[in-house]
Amino acid sequence: MPGPVFLTGERVELRTVEREDREFIARHRNDPAFRRVLGDTRPMNLSAATDYLESVVGDDDGETFLVGIGDRTVGLCFFYDLDETNGSAEIGYWITLEAQGRGHATDAARTLARYAFDERRLDKLTARVRAPNVASGRVLEKVGFREEGVLREQEFVGGRRVDLRVFGLLPSELER
Amino acid sequence: MPGPVFLTGERVELRTVEREDREFIARHRNDPAFRRVLGDTRPMNLSAATDYLESVVGDDDGETFLVGIGDRTVGLCFFYDLDETNGSAEIGYWITLEAQGRGHATDAARTLARYAFDERRLDKLTARVRAPNVASGRVLEKVGFREEGVLREQEFVGGRRVDLRVFGLLPSELER
Amino acid sequence: MPGPVFLTGERVELRTVEREDREFIARHRNDPAFRRVLGDTRPMNLSAATDYLESVVGDDDGETFLVGIGDRTVGLCFFYDLDETNGSAEIGYWITLEAQGRGHATDAARTLARYAFDERRLDKLTARVRAPNVASGRVLEKVGFREEGVLREQEFVGGRRVDLRVFGLLPSELER
Amino acid sequence: MPGPVFLTGERVELRTVEREDREFIARHRNDPAFRRVLGDTRPMNLSAATDYLESVVGDDDGETFLVGIGDRTVGLCFFYDLDETNGSAEIGYWITLEAQGRGHATDAARTLARYAFDERRLDKLTARVRAPNVASGRVLEKVGFREEGVLREQEFVGGRRVDLRVFGLLPSELER
Amino acid sequence: MPGPVFLTGERVELRTVEREDREFIARHRNDPAFRRVLGDTRPMNLSAATDYLESVVGDDDGETFLVGIGDRTVGLCFFYDLDETNGSAEIGYWITLEAQGRGHATDAARTLARYAFDERRLDKLTARVRAPNVASGRVLEKVGFREEGVLREQEFVGGRRVDLRVFGLLPSELER
Amino acid sequence: MPGPVFLTGERVELRTVEREDREFIARHRNDPAFRRVLGDTRPMNLSAATDYLESVVGDDDGETFLVGIGDRTVGLCFFYDLDETNGSAEIGYWITLEAQGRGHATDAARTLARYAFDERRLDKLTARVRAPNVASGRVLEKVGFREEGVLREQEFVGGRRVDLRVFGLLPSELER
Repeated sequence: MPGPVFLTGERVELRTVEREDREFIARHRNDPAFRRVLGDTRPMNLSAATDYLESVVGDDDGETFLVGIGDRTVGLCFFYDLDETNGSAEIGYWITLEAQGRGHATDAARTLARYAFDERRLDKLTARVRAPNVASGRVLEKVGFREEGVLREQEFVGGRRVDLRVFGLLPSELER
Repeated sequence: MPGPVFLTGERVELRTVEREDREFIARHRNDPAFRRVLGDTRPMNLSAATDYLESVVGDDDGETFLVGIGDRTVGLCFFYDLDETNGSAEIGYWITLEAQGRGHATDAARTLARYAFDERRLDKLTARVRAPNVASGRVLEKVGFREEGVLREQEFVGGRRVDLRVFGLLPSELER
Repeated sequence: MPGPVFLTGERVELRTVEREDREFIARHRNDPAFRRVLGDTRPMNLSAATDYLESVVGDDDGETFLVGIGDRTVGLCFFYDLDETNGSAEIGYWITLEAQGRGHATDAARTLARYAFDERRLDKLTARVRAPNVASGRVLEKVGFREEGVLREQEFVGGRRVDLRVFGLLPSELER
Repeated sequence: MPGPVFLTGERVELRTVEREDREFIARHRNDPAFRRVLGDTRPMNLSAATDYLESVVGDDDGETFLVGIGDRTVGLCFFYDLDETNGSAEIGYWITLEAQGRGHATDAARTLARYAFDERRLDKLTARVRAPNVASGRVLEKVGFREEGVLREQEFVGGRRVDLRVFGLLPSELER
Repeated sequence: MPGPVFLTGERVELRTVEREDREFIARHRNDPAFRRVLGDTRPMNLSAATDYLESVVGDDDGETFLVGIGDRTVGLCFFYDLDETNGSAEIGYWITLEAQGRGHATDAARTLARYAFDERRLDKLTARVRAPNVASGRVLEKVGFREEGVLREQEFVGGRRVDLRVFGLLPSELER
Repeated sequence: MPGPVFLTGERVELRTVEREDREFIARHRNDPAFRRVLGDTRPMNLSAATDYLESVVGDDDGETFLVGIGDRTVGLCFFYDLDETNGSAEIGYWITLEAQGRGHATDAARTLARYAFDERRLDKLTARVRAPNVASGRVLEKVGFREEGVLREQEFVGGRRVDLRVFGLLPSELER
C-alpha cells in the first residue's frame, strides 16, 4: 500500500516514502540497465535500501517523494543539498524504464519545483545531468531550466570520463 | 527469494547479498570438504553468518555478491582491501562443489573485474591462490590475470605450510 | 534443525552451535546426575544458556562444537584457553548419559585434536580429568594423551576434595 | 608553534592543522570585513572553532591545510566533496586581508592541485567563486582552471543574489 | 624521555612507543621529502599522531617499536597483519633521512625478525618495498629475505603507477 | 611514594599497587634480560602499564601486591585464577635482577600463601615454573610446594618449546 499523496501534478502524484517501498527502490537501484541511468555504482540490498529510506526521510537537507500514477509507483523525485541561507537546492528524479517516455519525469520535476518555490521559499534550483543522457536534459528544459555550465570529464562512467551538464532554474522561469 | 541482479555475466548473475542467504553461506563455510578449498578454519553458526553478511554489506573497503544461475545460488564473489588512493583491490570467489567445472568462477571473476575497472575506477586487481588449488589459478589466467609472485610457505593448511600464488590484473589485460 | 557439520570423525559429526541448542545445553547442565560428571554446581536457566552459547560462539580463545550422530545431538566438545604465542590450548568434552559407552567421546576428542593441530597450527593440547572419572581418563589415553601430572586435592566435589589429573598431547602422539 | 610542513609551494608552505590554530581560524571567520569574502554568515566561538578543526582533520572526504610563510600563518586551503569513484573533488582557499596580493593564494592552490593529482590519484578538480570576487577567479586561471559555467543568482550575499562561477581543472591543464 | 628498551640489536635498541613520541612521528610523517619514502599521502596533525600511537600500541595484530641509538630516536619498526593461524606477519621500518646509510634499518629489521620467530612463534615474515626504493630492498636482502614477487603497477606515487616488490623470510633464512 | 603496607613477611612488605608504580612495572616488563624470566613477549608502554595496574587492582579473580624492602620496591607478587567454589588459586611473583638471591621471593611467596589460606579460606595453591628456571622452583620448595607434574613442551620460549613444572601446596604443607 503506497503512502499518502503529498503533492499532485497533472497526472503524477508525489507520495510519502514508506518502509514498504524498499523493494521497489532496491530492484531499480541494482538493475544493471537502469543503474547506468542513475549513475549508481554500488549494490544495495534490502537492508541498505531500508537504511537509505530512513536516511532520506529524516534528512534535514532535502525531501524525497515517490512518483505514482494511481496505485502504481513509477519513480522517485527529490531535492537535496538544501541551503537555507542562500535559498538554493539541487533536484533529481528517476522514472522506471517501463514508465518512461510519457512525460512523468517532466510532470514530477515541475511539481517538485513549484513546491520548492511556493512552499519552501527557495530562490534557485539546480540539477545535474550526464551529457550522454539527452532525454533527462530535455525534461529540465521543458520545466524551464537553462543550462548554466558543462563540467568537463567530471564523472567516471562505464570505463571513461563523461561531462556533466549543470542546469539552473529561477522562480520566474518555471513553466507552471 | 534471492536479491536483485546487480551485474550480469555471460551466464552467471551477480546479486546483492540478503539476510536470507545466511543459510547458504553457513552451510558451505562449515562443510569440511569445502572448507579446505576456502581456507576457512573456524566454525560459523547462523548468528555468525548473519554478522558476516552485515559486515560485508556495510563494508566501505569492498563489495560482495552472490553468484547465481537463474534462481539458484552457486557461489560468492567479492573484492576487498579496496585502496582508493592507489586504485587497487583484491578479489576472491568461490563456487559450490556441485556447480564447479562449468566456467561459473571465470564468468563471475571476469564480471567482477569489469565492474571494478569500469564502474569503480580501479586501476589494479590482485588475487591470491594457494598453490595446490590449480583450478583456481587457471580461472584467474582465463580472466587475464598474470602470476606476479609466489609467497613461499605462507599459509598453514592441513598440518603443513603451503605456498600462496599472487596474481595481478591491469585494465588493459582483462579478457572482456 | 541442528547446525551444519564442521568436522567429521569416524562416526560423530562436530556441528556449529546454534541458538536452538540452548534447550539441550540447559537440560543437561541442570540434571543432578549429570552435573556431578560435568562439575557444574550452579543452575542455568534458558536465558543463561543463551548467554553461555553466545559467549562460547564469540570467544576468541577457543571453539565449541555440538557432538552429533546424524541428527541426534549427544554432547559437546570444545577447546579453550587458546594461547597463540605458545601454541597451546586445553580441550574438554561431555557426552549425555544415554549415549555414553560407545566411543563417541574418543571419536570427538580425536577429531577435535586433529583440527587443532592441522587447521589451527597448535603445538600442544592439555586436558584435565577428575581422578574418580576413570572413563574420561581412558578416553584421553586412547586419543594419545599422556598423564603429565596429578594436582592433589585440587577440586571440591560432593563434599570432599578430589585430585585432578592433567594430560598432555603433542602432535606426533595423536592416534589419527 | 605551527604544525609540521606537509607540502611546499614556491613560497608558501602547507602545514597540518593543529588545535592551537583555532584562535587564528576564529579571528578571521568572525571578522565582519573578511566574512564577506568567505561567505560565512554565522558567528564562530572558540569552542565552535575547535569543533570545526576536529571535523576537518577527521574528514574522510577532504583535507585541510594551513597556508604559512615561514612561521607566519596567512590562510587556509582545502579540498572537500572528495568523490573517490569519480576521482573528483572541490578545492577552496582563503588568505588573510593583510597577506593578500602577493600570489600566496595562487601558490597554495597550485600546490594543493599538484598534491591531489600526484598523490591522491584524482582526475578532476572544481572550484566555485562568487562573480564579484574577480581576484579569486584570476587565481584559479593562473593555476590552469577554466570557467565551466555560471550558476545564475546562486547565492544570497549582502542583501542581493549573486552569480557563482564554476571552474574546472584536468591534470593535463595544471600549470606546474 | 624515551620509553624502556624492549629489544637490543647490534647497535640499535627497540623501545616501547610512548605518548611523548608523537612529535617525532608527526614531524617525519608530514615531511614532503620523507613522505615519498614512506608512501604516506595524508597529513597527520598532533592529534592524529596521538590516535595513531594509541592504535598501534593497542593493536592485537602487530607490534610497533621506536628505533633508538642511545637516547636518540632514529626511526620506527613494526609488524602488522599478524595471522596467528598461519603464523605469518608483515614487517615494516623507516629510518630518518639524517640517520640513514649506517645499517640501522638492517639492524632493526633483523632484531624484529628474531623477536617474531623466537618469542612470537611466527613461521613466515613478508615485507613490501616500492621498486624505486632500491635501498630498502637491499636492507631486506641483508636480513635474509628473498624477493618472492613483483606486484606490477600496484601503487600510485607521484603521479604514476609503480611496482611493489614482495619479499619473504623463513626462520631458517634469517641472518642472525 | 609507595602505597600502604598490607602484609608483612620476615623482611619484605607487601604493599597496595598504586598508579605511580607503572614506571617500575614498565621498566622491568620490557627489559630484555628480565623478560626471559617473566615469560612476557609483548612490549608494554606506560599507558599499557597503567591499564595493567587498573586491571589487576579491579580484578575479582586475584590480588596483586608490590614487594618492598622499606621504601624500595623490589618486585611483584600475586594470585590469580581464583576459583571460590573449589577454593583454589594460582600464585606468581618476580623480584628484580638487582634484588635477587636474598630470599625476598621466598619471603613474599610464603607471606602470600599464608594470606590465601588464613584470610581468604583457600584450600589449594598452585604455581607454574618453566623447567629452565631452577631458582624459581627452589623458591616454591622452600615455601612447602611439591612438584605435581611436568607439562611437556608447553611453552614457546626463545625459539624452542620448553617444559612447564606445576607445583601445588596444601594448607598443612605451608612452611610458616
